[in-house]
Amino acid sequence: MADPKTNDLMERIVSLCKRRGFVFQSSEIYGGINGFWDYGPLGAELKRNVKDQWWRSMTQQREDVAGLEATIIMSPRIWEASGHVQTFADLMVECPVTKKRFRADQVEESSGIVYKFSGAKDASGKTSADAFEVMVPAGKPKESALKVAKQFYQLRGLAAPEPIDNGEPAKVDKSTLYSPDSGARLSDPRPFNLMFKTFVGPVESEDNVAYLRPETAQAIFAQFKNVLETSRQKVPFGICQIGKAFRNEVTPRNFTFRSREFEQMELEFFIRPDEAVEAICGEVAKPKGPGHPGEPQTNWGWQMWHQYWVEERIRFYENIGLPRTTLVEYWQKPEELAHYARATVDILFKFPFSKKNEKGELMGEELEGVAARSDFDLSQHQRFSGKSQGVFDEELKISWAKLTPEKQTDLTKRYYETRFKYLTKTGVQAEQAERTAKEDAAGLAKGNYVPHVIEPSAGVDRLTLALICNAYAEEQAPDEKGKMEQRIVLKFHPRIAPIKVAVFPLLKNRPELVKKAMEVRDLLRPHMTVFYDEAGAIGRRYRRQDEAGTPFGVTIDFETLGENAPDQKDTVTLRDRDSMTQTRVNIKDLLGVLLEKVR
Amino acid sequence: MADPKTNDLMERIVSLCKRRGFVFQSSEIYGGINGFWDYGPLGAELKRNVKDQWWRSMTQQREDVAGLEATIIMSPRIWEASGHVQTFADLMVECPVTKKRFRADQVEESSGIVYKFSGAKDASGKTSADAFEVMVPAGKPKESALKVAKQFYQLRGLAAPEPIDNGEPAKVDKSTLYSPDSGARLSDPRPFNLMFKTFVGPVESEDNVAYLRPETAQAIFAQFKNVLETSRQKVPFGICQIGKAFRNEVTPRNFTFRSREFEQMELEFFIRPDEAVEAICGEVAKPKGPGHPGEPQTNWGWQMWHQYWVEERIRFYENIGLPRTTLVEYWQKPEELAHYARATVDILFKFPFSKKNEKGELMGEELEGVAARSDFDLSQHQRFSGKSQGVFDEELKISWAKLTPEKQTDLTKRYYETRFKYLTKTGVQAEQAERTAKEDAAGLAKGNYVPHVIEPSAGVDRLTLALICNAYAEEQAPDEKGKMEQRIVLKFHPRIAPIKVAVFPLLKNRPELVKKAMEVRDLLRPHMTVFYDEAGAIGRRYRRQDEAGTPFGVTIDFETLGENAPDQKDTVTLRDRDSMTQTRVNIKDLLGVLLEKVR
Repeated sequence: MADPKTNDLMERIVSLCKRRGFVFQSSEIYGGINGFWDYGPLGAELKRNVKDQWWRSMTQQREDVAGLEATIIMSPRIWEASGHVQTFADLMVECPVTKKRFRADQVEESSGIVYKFSGAKDASGKTSADAFEVMVPAGKPKESALKVAKQFYQLRGLAAPEPIDNGEPAKVDKSTLYSPDSGARLSDPRPFNLMFKTFVGPVESEDNVAYLRPETAQAIFAQFKNVLETSRQKVPFGICQIGKAFRNEVTPRNFTFRSREFEQMELEFFIRPDEAVEAICGEVAKPKGPGHPGEPQTNWGWQMWHQYWVEERIRFYENIGLPRTTLVEYWQKPEELAHYARATVDILFKFPFSKKNEKGELMGEELEGVAARSDFDLSQHQRFSGKSQGVFDEELKISWAKLTPEKQTDLTKRYYETRFKYLTKTGVQAEQAERTAKEDAAGLAKGNYVPHVIEPSAGVDRLTLALICNAYAEEQAPDEKGKMEQRIVLKFHPRIAPIKVAVFPLLKNRPELVKKAMEVRDLLRPHMTVFYDEAGAIGRRYRRQDEAGTPFGVTIDFETLGENAPDQKDTVTLRDRDSMTQTRVNIKDLLGVLLEKVR
Repeated sequence: MADPKTNDLMERIVSLCKRRGFVFQSSEIYGGINGFWDYGPLGAELKRNVKDQWWRSMTQQREDVAGLEATIIMSPRIWEASGHVQTFADLMVECPVTKKRFRADQVEESSGIVYKFSGAKDASGKTSADAFEVMVPAGKPKESALKVAKQFYQLRGLAAPEPIDNGEPAKVDKSTLYSPDSGARLSDPRPFNLMFKTFVGPVESEDNVAYLRPETAQAIFAQFKNVLETSRQKVPFGICQIGKAFRNEVTPRNFTFRSREFEQMELEFFIRPDEAVEAICGEVAKPKGPGHPGEPQTNWGWQMWHQYWVEERIRFYENIGLPRTTLVEYWQKPEELAHYARATVDILFKFPFSKKNEKGELMGEELEGVAARSDFDLSQHQRFSGKSQGVFDEELKISWAKLTPEKQTDLTKRYYETRFKYLTKTGVQAEQAERTAKEDAAGLAKGNYVPHVIEPSAGVDRLTLALICNAYAEEQAPDEKGKMEQRIVLKFHPRIAPIKVAVFPLLKNRPELVKKAMEVRDLLRPHMTVFYDEAGAIGRRYRRQDEAGTPFGVTIDFETLGENAPDQKDTVTLRDRDSMTQTRVNIKDLLGVLLEKVR
């Protein structure tokens, strides 16, 4: 958050979120807990709408995706296979005096004089061999260095220690080697695993360690075979899941953007390896240029599928009110890719707290990554579980038999090479890798392979925050007396707005108005979320709904009762949140008009 | 699971759940993880429908309940206030030889001869003071007892130990004091907390301990004030939440019924204390008999509200297809109630694995508890957080001023007494309790109180399993040639069925049929979950949907194309899953007919 102005904007958004019940700090009455956020009534509804839209777009509206809902705690073997146990870590350094830890890449620079000690002797003559270094600001006396050194040695069990001076102090400039807390020289960086650890069962032993999942994706891979066998799907098809995930972030930040408990929406879309596509179709279609490539085709290889999913996902965002102009499509550079990934596109949203480029434009923060992950994931689970994760593809088997021997040899060789590369990259010894890759290549000729995967992986909380930031507007609008005042409004797309319509009787103390308003409320309520409000001036009630992001307001007035103009009997005013225009609609048409707009 | 027949039934249900993709064992390819279950495509959809129905019935369809979505990991102080840190525990005993733990109330009885040892000496003459007892089956030689004793002393650091015999062996009958594993005398029972523990932040210290929530309710209490202030609600009103909860059960059992990771749907409905109701209305309405008491009234005290919520919840179950006859309304006996609870009704479902009473009737297992919890929860959080959890009630203040002095004194006294009782029961010293209760009673007169609460708390997984068990039927039905065969069918209520309608072209190899069927699919799909299936004989396809619980099947046949009877052009057969009857419906009426049935 470099720019104070954007800082201000973000603060005003955070303040609105609290004031209107979108987001609260978790455990606030106990001082909160860093990195955890709760959704209040409006936030919970907004988030539900986001998840519903995603789930419906993936499952109900498609033939080729099946849903899954797996547990957060799974066998720890899954995280060995995925690599999370070994490599899902930040490098951390520790202050040897205060025991506080810092992310190695985030230690603040400091300058001063460094004193070195080669050990210490205590009153009884016992000597410590531990060397110690401490930096004190220039100008401070040597005693302050001695004091920290004494603390250090005392912690190591030396009572009344006397540090052994190790020669000349040295001037050091802008170093990140010393503790911002005590000045003591920090430990060497050590990896700190970001998975939350717990124990399953009554004994807290290494055998019973389990982790809170750091992503929902792995459960999809672990249940791939079960879903395949029970869902009547065949490759290409996908499995999707929405659910909580946990990462013990060292420095949670940017409101709900980087938190320790969050929710993901992930799809793993399983496809044929390119060699199988080529065997079946004679060729593999390649992208012809940017944009959506249209309906899926049998001759698509991973590149077409990848482009398809990037575009499908951007369409999804547009569909819930994030225009393409608010998004950035970032192609990861070759050196940024994991060794098994063939391409990854990050879809970024320009948050107010995003960094800016040299032109002063917001660069955006990741909402979603769409990764072409080859056959890495299922292959890992196959190796670690010893259970085949391959599929049998009848079409491939039939097509293969009709290929020329040259083509067969060519495809076999290419498939062998990618399998061999995967195996050796993951540590399988060359001889074993050669044997296994040969088997895999022989399997391909019989119609067997491990599917490749395209993974669109989105964060629910990030998207919810993006929708709030995008919807937030401060405008000048006339109050009831025509005087201009500031209006804060959340311009949510009606599809995701927490409340679809607010119903108001013009006056609270006129029973006919109240009765009619309640009838209208009850007419709409089975079909959408309705908020009924009779308290205060109508202008104030509109403003409250503006802040809640309610797209439509229905007011029951004296015209509705037929008191002023008989031809307006049973009509209401329908107010549009964004334009603030009001139109008269007959009550009998109201449900239809609104359903059209909110779906 | 006493009865082998019900055992069989449950096994067949479990098998169907696996076969059709309702429920899989978590991490199955790695041998599973005890107490964790995943929902496959149909199960995920079923569970979603259950949650949606609950959420909509609580929020969208009511004025007086607001939603919340809080985190699973919260400040550990919350679990101190709720009592979970101190008392949410099972008593466990440990085998001193194998270190295995058992629930103290579940140790199997064993009989045999008990040998006692008062210590052991090792080769170098070092002696252990630990006494040891072990039971061996009658008839086994003393050497087997000695062997276990040696293991015991070896674990305590004695190399080649020689146990010191402590006199005569004793015969013991049906004792639960000895380890089923080794025969060693078990440890004394110690409490084992059922909360999963983890650490937040990079340091694994006591300061950073946190727990996975064992219930969703506490977050509602912790955010009570925030929701109250932002949602424009006032007492009486409720806050509801759906979400995962975790209990480190020692013995998870009965499929998904008692698992370690599960989902809850909880409502906390906040009401006025009876004294406030009496001050406002002059009296407190009491239940007049069984049944639903109708629309909420201002003069309801906790008893009416409690009855109301019990009946509302039963209506909910009826509404999604669990008839009242499958449920049991169990009123907890006074000795079963927590000290702060005024009444609790458990709503039980008669699962196949439920215990039977002496008449052989299934007694049922808990789906939901509806508890009248007094003002215990908010009062605890008020004490532990130091932040007022009280509300100001304008109506009460106004009414109070109009009461006679006698009435004021009477209500003040009664309110004082309940507050004093709460405070002393929770460990506040008498003098302090007296002072605080006096303040609380004085506050009441000014319109201030801590709300009481009615808590309907339901388990999503239990309900989902109940719906599956209730829907499961094995019937005899004719196959396509009229021969009787077994039909397995899940008779879900259309509201919660994972798939609402299946669409079939009669024959897969007739493009006109396939084209028309896809048109029908696309017509219905925006409005409900549709499964399109063209593979296999139509009878087989019906049976597959019977097992999936799909209530309706639509077949596109030659009549649809107008080939046989011109007047049947553009009509389809609509098959009813339960009656298996088929009716012809015009395609233009189809959506309306189905929407009517599935809503």
